[in-house]
Amino acid sequence: MSRCVIQVINPNTSQAMTATIGAAATRVAAPGTEIVAVCPSQGVPSIEGHFDEAVATLGVLELIRQGREQGVSGHVIACFGDPGLLAARELACAPVIGIAEAAMHLATLVATRFSIVTTLPRTLIIARHLLQRYGFEHHCAALHAIDLPVLALDDAQGLAQHKVREMCIQSKRQDGSGAIVLGCGGMADLAQTLTQELAMPVIDGVSAAVKMVESLVGLGLGTSKHGDLDYPLDKPLTGVFEGLR
Amino acid sequence: MSRCVIQVINPNTSQAMTATIGAAATRVAAPGTEIVAVCPSQGVPSIEGHFDEAVATLGVLELIRQGREQGVSGHVIACFGDPGLLAARELACAPVIGIAEAAMHLATLVATRFSIVTTLPRTLIIARHLLQRYGFEHHCAALHAIDLPVLALDDAQGLAQHKVREMCIQSKRQDGSGAIVLGCGGMADLAQTLTQELAMPVIDGVSAAVKMVESLVGLGLGTSKHGDLDYPLDKPLTGVFEGLR
Amino acid sequence: MSRCVIQVINPNTSQAMTATIGAAATRVAAPGTEIVAVCPSQGVPSIEGHFDEAVATLGVLELIRQGREQGVSGHVIACFGDPGLLAARELACAPVIGIAEAAMHLATLVATRFSIVTTLPRTLIIARHLLQRYGFEHHCAALHAIDLPVLALDDAQGLAQHKVREMCIQSKRQDGSGAIVLGCGGMADLAQTLTQELAMPVIDGVSAAVKMVESLVGLGLGTSKHGDLDYPLDKPLTGVFEGLR
Amino acid sequence: MSRCVIQVINPNTSQAMTATIGAAATRVAAPGTEIVAVCPSQGVPSIEGHFDEAVATLGVLELIRQGREQGVSGHVIACFGDPGLLAARELACAPVIGIAEAAMHLATLVATRFSIVTTLPRTLIIARHLLQRYGFEHHCAALHAIDLPVLALDDAQGLAQHKVREMCIQSKRQDGSGAIVLGCGGMADLAQTLTQELAMPVIDGVSAAVKMVESLVGLGLGTSKHGDLDYPLDKPLTGVFEGLR
Amino acid sequence: MSRCVIQVINPNTSQAMTATIGAAATRVAAPGTEIVAVCPSQGVPSIEGHFDEAVATLGVLELIRQGREQGVSGHVIACFGDPGLLAARELACAPVIGIAEAAMHLATLVATRFSIVTTLPRTLIIARHLLQRYGFEHHCAALHAIDLPVLALDDAQGLAQHKVREMCIQSKRQDGSGAIVLGCGGMADLAQTLTQELAMPVIDGVSAAVKMVESLVGLGLGTSKHGDLDYPLDKPLTGVFEGLR
Amino acid sequence: MSRCVIQVINPNTSQAMTATIGAAATRVAAPGTEIVAVCPSQGVPSIEGHFDEAVATLGVLELIRQGREQGVSGHVIACFGDPGLLAARELACAPVIGIAEAAMHLATLVATRFSIVTTLPRTLIIARHLLQRYGFEHHCAALHAIDLPVLALDDAQGLAQHKVREMCIQSKRQDGSGAIVLGCGGMADLAQTLTQELAMPVIDGVSAAVKMVESLVGLGLGTSKHGDLDYPLDKPLTGVFEGLR
Repeated sequence: MSRCVIQVINPNTSQAMTATIGAAATRVAAPGTEIVAVCPSQGVPSIEGHFDEAVATLGVLELIRQGREQGVSGHVIACFGDPGLLAARELACAPVIGIAEAAMHLATLVATRFSIVTTLPRTLIIARHLLQRYGFEHHCAALHAIDLPVLALDDAQGLAQHKVREMCIQSKRQDGSGAIVLGCGGMADLAQTLTQELAMPVIDGVSAAVKMVESLVGLGLGTSKHGDLDYPLDKPLTGVFEGLR
Repeated sequence: MSRCVIQVINPNTSQAMTATIGAAATRVAAPGTEIVAVCPSQGVPSIEGHFDEAVATLGVLELIRQGREQGVSGHVIACFGDPGLLAARELACAPVIGIAEAAMHLATLVATRFSIVTTLPRTLIIARHLLQRYGFEHHCAALHAIDLPVLALDDAQGLAQHKVREMCIQSKRQDGSGAIVLGCGGMADLAQTLTQELAMPVIDGVSAAVKMVESLVGLGLGTSKHGDLDYPLDKPLTGVFEGLR
Repeated sequence: MSRCVIQVINPNTSQAMTATIGAAATRVAAPGTEIVAVCPSQGVPSIEGHFDEAVATLGVLELIRQGREQGVSGHVIACFGDPGLLAARELACAPVIGIAEAAMHLATLVATRFSIVTTLPRTLIIARHLLQRYGFEHHCAALHAIDLPVLALDDAQGLAQHKVREMCIQSKRQDGSGAIVLGCGGMADLAQTLTQELAMPVIDGVSAAVKMVESLVGLGLGTSKHGDLDYPLDKPLTGVFEGLR
Repeated sequence: MSRCVIQVINPNTSQAMTATIGAAATRVAAPGTEIVAVCPSQGVPSIEGHFDEAVATLGVLELIRQGREQGVSGHVIACFGDPGLLAARELACAPVIGIAEAAMHLATLVATRFSIVTTLPRTLIIARHLLQRYGFEHHCAALHAIDLPVLALDDAQGLAQHKVREMCIQSKRQDGSGAIVLGCGGMADLAQTLTQELAMPVIDGVSAAVKMVESLVGLGLGTSKHGDLDYPLDKPLTGVFEGLR
Repeated sequence: MSRCVIQVINPNTSQAMTATIGAAATRVAAPGTEIVAVCPSQGVPSIEGHFDEAVATLGVLELIRQGREQGVSGHVIACFGDPGLLAARELACAPVIGIAEAAMHLATLVATRFSIVTTLPRTLIIARHLLQRYGFEHHCAALHAIDLPVLALDDAQGLAQHKVREMCIQSKRQDGSGAIVLGCGGMADLAQTLTQELAMPVIDGVSAAVKMVESLVGLGLGTSKHGDLDYPLDKPLTGVFEGLR
Repeated sequence: MSRCVIQVINPNTSQAMTATIGAAATRVAAPGTEIVAVCPSQGVPSIEGHFDEAVATLGVLELIRQGREQGVSGHVIACFGDPGLLAARELACAPVIGIAEAAMHLATLVATRFSIVTTLPRTLIIARHLLQRYGFEHHCAALHAIDLPVLALDDAQGLAQHKVREMCIQSKRQDGSGAIVLGCGGMADLAQTLTQELAMPVIDGVSAAVKMVESLVGLGLGTSKHGDLDYPLDKPLTGVFEGLR
């Protein structure tokens, strides 16, 4: 496998979370892989709903376009709602992987059913919709929210991390699942420790997505440009969107 | 029913299509209803894919916020992919209805199964995803694309209109459906004529959505602010997004 | 919108419930709409199972035929199981709307998921089957029964109303739903109060159905007579059914 | 197995079809089984839509009640739409089997997928709804209608029989199904011949239902009276329905 | 009905369980039916997972081939996971019925929804997959495991039987189901007593499968040899598999 | 990533196909990955149905056990029906990936919908069942069979390869899919050429599965041993199965 550059996009504007995500990505990257972790210069500091996703999507697309121009080998959208995924796939020719889909896909390969542990209850509907879209409704045994906002994961005191761990332990006891999917990019650094402590796969989407991109790149497969993911039609974008395509 | 002001948002920037949509909305509006047809000042001239939708969503949200501040009674998102629908619902307290959902809902009330006639083949996947999301996969017997871009509907020669009509006739003969849903806001002016010519319901989403908003307003029902459609969390939006919420 | 006459059919023979239903319908009717609330002269006093529905269906069809002959603009079937809905649609050319479908449809337009609160547990299966038929299984988060018969809602002491309210409060706390659907025509007068008290949409199907009929009438759409909802084939009905078609 | 009396109910009023159905039932009945083929004294001469089904259901229920009072061992509803099935189950304590469900169930036991051949296209929606209700959507590869009314099967010239045979042959060639379900009680006498001629299972619901009733009776299983199929609640039925329960 | 010989295959090697299964089968067999209960001479003593199923499948196929050569009228696979069902159908021309499918099918004919009571929690996934495959996901209200291994049912002290009974009582109280399916061939002797004690259908798959085979034999229907269940292609099997086909 | 040894199991006994599969696996293996391609010493020469799968599963399990004892990093089951997948996962602690699942998963990451091109029509049902099990029914637009047996792919004249290519071209023209999945391990060497010729992703499961194993190994994730994929219970296997666990 030749040199592989993966653009890991944190769709929110938090530098701390971008660093966490970038570190998690780097930790699992194959020898030949370079991770470029980026976040938009403008947008929302965290993503906890459809509005936040819609806003963040513009930043994602701007970064995808930049990545494409820089010739990166693949892109990761590192927010658990996979905001802008299909739009990004239209814009890119390289693979584009969302961290929710990556984690969900891999979870179905190591367990018959999995549970999801995420941040705020209001984001659960986004996970539910993704399960339906990706075809994994029957593979998800339960969804849990720790009821803390995303940015609590940046807090040095670790309350959010504590709650994630508690919820994972409870999930293991109750759900009858064989694996747990961590439902937020900001939890990327918890997966390995929890996997060992709980003695079951606890899956982080960021690292999962990096491996999926590496896989597709290694197979010479990019996003299909035949059919409905072809490049956006050539139309004059106006205003702040000029030059986005 | 007291005075009802419905903001009809054409998510693309085409003035001609905004006029078509506004006229269709006005034609069916109840006596007490005022239609305010608007489109974004910047964005994409037509919407034919996920990228276009993502870009258009920002304009939709900006207009939703304006409409909310103006105290409108409800909002219509007049593009068949219902771009930004759930984000708009978070932003609004009044009802927000997409034209695809409105047309699909009503079609299931007058026929056991319906067909969809839309513009470019690449938009079919958007309709498929909406059918899945809304629960109407079993109610849709067939999807057809006339293979002309959206803006061909603005063309004075009427080739697109001709093709829509041909496709509807073919659909009636083949699909075993009891109704046809027109899959583009730019087809809003064709529904009534085709309904009469084909002697079966041919449903335009723009007018359907206006009636759905009137219905919800008449019932005193707005978008639920309990749970996952509550207002976006109060976070500092930066750059061009400042003030969007 | 020209004059609109909506026949609201209470499928059971309870005059008190017919009055409740008629009042709820009238309360939300648009200025140009006249409500004609009727119930069969023979049948069952309340509907709490498939047998009751089958019996009530005959009365519904007789009334639909009468309404059609009187030239009404549309019909509402005001029992939460929507008994005889597709048979009624064959018989009618105007729109026919069931209150379960009306409430469920509208609930999906104001919330991502809804709960149902109904009367006896044995009727839950009817609601489940309708959710499947209409496509809303994924939109319904929970079903609850207050475990009192339908006619308890006619009781002046208000025990049933009290239990409905308690159940709605519990549902709001537990289900993660954004809206509640009231699962009985006899609860029609509770929706508005509960919507305000609970600060979330609590939806009554009777008023919802009235607005759906008004919507379809306003759009010039009737039940499709192309295909499987065409008029019943012309065959000699015998016995008590003579003249029913 | 002690003596078993199976009431085979033809829901329409055609004596000729009742005879066909009775003969088919008798042909497969086990030694200890007595077939009592009946049809309502009033109703519809054939069933080709939801309206016809609703009318026929009353006759079915009246006969179920009579059968119950006579102490029959089980009931068959011999019309492919299984009209009134759940209402009949409430009324009965013995097993009640519809011929559509019987044929579909058995088809899934001898083939991975089956096709349906029925009469008029307008009845296809009824079969589709049953497939959904019974859970066999994925097991049905194709539905075909010969486009002749039910009573054409009573015609001595045999045109309908010819068309059924042609359609079965075509289905075998095209559908990739391993079995064919005949979608009308009036086709009951064709199954055996076609099974042999086509060298694949061609399944008639009447005989299938008889065997299902025998099976349940042999196992000492009746319709569950625990829960939602319990006897109808004791309420005063009025008019022509008096005494129906 | 002429003489009918049903080969009842216990896929595990437990003689005690084979006797239990054979007795249950014999108890319900019609007068003309002979039960031949067999088990493999080598394999696994009990089946509690996919590995056990895979091993047991070979023994099942060997016995199916023998049964076919002996000219039996039909085959029953008497393990609740229905191991090797489709492979057995390829090998046989007579009907082959699994006890899980038989019990589930019959449960849907006497109740709107059923519950399952089985042995170890790790086997629940097998039941879930069968529900999906057979189309009965919506018909199953709950799955319960008594958390004792299969062979505990052979224990004279009856602890497992006690736990099954307790679980059935709890299921009746909680699940809202109208019937219970016993999820293990070793529970075959419990169904009749529990049906009477609980006053609701408690269904054993062994006896259910016997009746399903009798039904198909009585109808002259065997496993379809048209299409994907045709005999295995003629290829040289090697090693221990020589002569298996 | 430390050294990674992937055992690639061809479940049939064809040495030629094992070589093809091994070569395809080696071609995409990452620098640190060693491919060990094996096939059973006894079993079936090709797999074209459920019976063949059942026989081949034993060989797969025997090889999985050997691989586990040799300490391989992961296992690939290189037959498109993924025979014995869940049984193998019980036996292994390292990841086990089937080539059908690998190809289907990756196809959903580069296209909204995919088509499948496989060998004999009788194997289509296996692919259909896997689509259902894995959750990808909505992602598969069409299934095609070239109607040649698996071993035709070993034929030097290349007729099968020619037919695969023709079918892929036809699929691209007709199906509206963005990717094609090759439905047989013996087609592993065709994917890269076809991807380039057709200018769309044509995905081979063998190479896909290798990358999925590498991904899981790189993430430190193995098959979950918590819950229903835990090691088989410790029970005495007898006869030829002794020592298999």
